[in-house]
Amino acid sequence: MFKVKVYVTLRQSVLDPQGVAVKHSLHTMNYNEVEEVRIGKYLELQVKSTENLEQRVKEMCEKLLANTVIEDYRFEIEEVVPS
Amino acid sequence: MFKVKVYVTLRQSVLDPQGVAVKHSLHTMNYNEVEEVRIGKYLELQVKSTENLEQRVKEMCEKLLANTVIEDYRFEIEEVVPS
Repeated sequence: MFKVKVYVTLRQSVLDPQGVAVKHSLHTMNYNEVEEVRIGKYLELQVKSTENLEQRVKEMCEKLLANTVIEDYRFEIEEVVPS
Repeated sequence: MFKVKVYVTLRQSVLDPQGVAVKHSLHTMNYNEVEEVRIGKYLELQVKSTENLEQRVKEMCEKLLANTVIEDYRFEIEEVVPS
């Protein structure tokens, strides 16, 4: 069994209005040290052992989990040792 | 300047219908090795140097970035070296 952690972030050139809104809220709360906020997605997948896991996760990201026109992604694969 | 990476995830006891929908989509696409999908948020903050940064980030998470009734959070603080 593997745990796959996928991070999907907006490309730097893409505006992030949700991040801007959160930044403004933080400023209202006197956290003025915050200069920028970017909001992305974090996915955790539990995956059974399979051949070509890395390649298959890459496909899942390209086809479904990330919109590669406006988003970047990266992932980490960890083996889950049964306890 | 610091980069703060915040990971917000649903608590394990909380249903994640969005994750279930993504899992079903992956199965439809023949990625049947995926057993569970949980979807969370990933935030990147650019923060100016300040006293008690770790404590202040913890407060931001508790007050705004995470809903601690149903979500867990963790964060990492990295110093950004100007290039």
